[in-house]
Amino acid sequence: MTNEHSMDELQEFKAKAEEIVREARSIIISGLSREVSYKLKADGSFVTDVDLAVEDLIRTRLQVAFPDHDVLGEEGPRTSGTSDYLWVIDPVDGTYSFRHRIPLFGTLLALNYRDRSIVGVIDLPALDRTYVAASGLGSRCNGRDLRLKDLSSEKAVRHEVIATGERKQFVKAEKSTEFDNLMRSHGSVRTYCDCFGHAMAIEGCVGAMVDYNIHIWDVAATEVLIQEVGGKFVRVRVDATGSVADARYDVVFGKPKVVDWALRVLGAETNI
Amino acid sequence: MTNEHSMDELQEFKAKAEEIVREARSIIISGLSREVSYKLKADGSFVTDVDLAVEDLIRTRLQVAFPDHDVLGEEGPRTSGTSDYLWVIDPVDGTYSFRHRIPLFGTLLALNYRDRSIVGVIDLPALDRTYVAASGLGSRCNGRDLRLKDLSSEKAVRHEVIATGERKQFVKAEKSTEFDNLMRSHGSVRTYCDCFGHAMAIEGCVGAMVDYNIHIWDVAATEVLIQEVGGKFVRVRVDATGSVADARYDVVFGKPKVVDWALRVLGAETNI
Repeated sequence: MTNEHSMDELQEFKAKAEEIVREARSIIISGLSREVSYKLKADGSFVTDVDLAVEDLIRTRLQVAFPDHDVLGEEGPRTSGTSDYLWVIDPVDGTYSFRHRIPLFGTLLALNYRDRSIVGVIDLPALDRTYVAASGLGSRCNGRDLRLKDLSSEKAVRHEVIATGERKQFVKAEKSTEFDNLMRSHGSVRTYCDCFGHAMAIEGCVGAMVDYNIHIWDVAATEVLIQEVGGKFVRVRVDATGSVADARYDVVFGKPKVVDWALRVLGAETNI
Repeated sequence: MTNEHSMDELQEFKAKAEEIVREARSIIISGLSREVSYKLKADGSFVTDVDLAVEDLIRTRLQVAFPDHDVLGEEGPRTSGTSDYLWVIDPVDGTYSFRHRIPLFGTLLALNYRDRSIVGVIDLPALDRTYVAASGLGSRCNGRDLRLKDLSSEKAVRHEVIATGERKQFVKAEKSTEFDNLMRSHGSVRTYCDCFGHAMAIEGCVGAMVDYNIHIWDVAATEVLIQEVGGKFVRVRVDATGSVADARYDVVFGKPKVVDWALRVLGAETNI
């Protein structure tokens, strides 16, 4: 895939993505110290004025930098729809955490080429951590190179922490039994929802993350970040019967041996 | 209870506790950037050289400042055992997180007078947050006054996040059914283990925390911190058949209406 883009191009995409997300961080930080207005969306999740302002800023910057690329965000529709390059934005991943001032939310930005991400940024403003990757160029956190170390044997899985999203995500995916099995199968399954769990898997702080019923803007940055640290990223299910914004993904990612263990516990057979 | 201590005394205890914990933070921060040695304890949990060094520092400082007071820590026995004043130390609460570089661990220090805490400090080094309280003197985080706002009605509980420890804590307390019921009863139950969950409840970021089968050094600081923000702290069960270091507590704390809701879901009838 990387052969279709020069290293210089990827480097440019990556640098611009990081620059834009870092600029957006100031909107989020100032939102933490004031009352934000929020409303309930049709899907039962919340949107705040901060989500809208961050997405607006990122869209504006991308349209100037890459006028031929498409853009899709959690809070707004896809532009034109003809380019092979699609920027995918989650302005505040973990809006529920953000609204409650739980400091485990972040901003996600990815560049997809056709169906796979080639650039990914996860920014955790309250933790002051920015994770950046591009295909073939590695993953870094605050400038530090990241590399996952797989377990020497699957027996060591019991010493790992396993991250998941909330149980209600699995209920929506009609997989509550799988969630309950996972919870019972391991002593340290923790609901580290949203991009915090993703970041912990990318760093290897948790062995794997199991995240179900999520959108393209939740998975895109993580896919390339995990691949570039030498991790395994498995799409267990993709429900893409509607538009790209409506698609739902069930994914498992992290250290290869922990991912394999989790897939077995989940009874997940498909690998798309 | 506060009548037995002058405000000046409490102020002095509180200031010294905060000073000592802040000094200990440097040991933890330096431990994050090197390989720490760890061993498995008899109870299946881990202890690192950082836990031991932090407890050693805190004990030394307390013995100089308050030579007549007793001291008990997670990693060492109770001194003398004759004073009504007992300092309780958890040098690294969330050692498992610390070992995995998950930034949600902390240092806990409390002063108990007879069976109740009158001073409490929770320090989260990786989040740069220090929570400090003393009876009648309020709770603060990094110098900011904290005050919980209870819900206007129990119906609003569904908009809150509910924090718990890991499922295995409930298994050890023979309360796995209660854990499973809690998980199923609410859309946003999250395993924010250890002092991170406690801190989130003290700030009101989560509506309540349900934490089972924990030790005196896990609960002591939180008890006074929650009371001083106007929250409710309920000991659902205290198993104190052995020594104070062996005692186990099941506790629920946070916004009063959320605590009442959680107690009902848990089927918890006792309030000690």
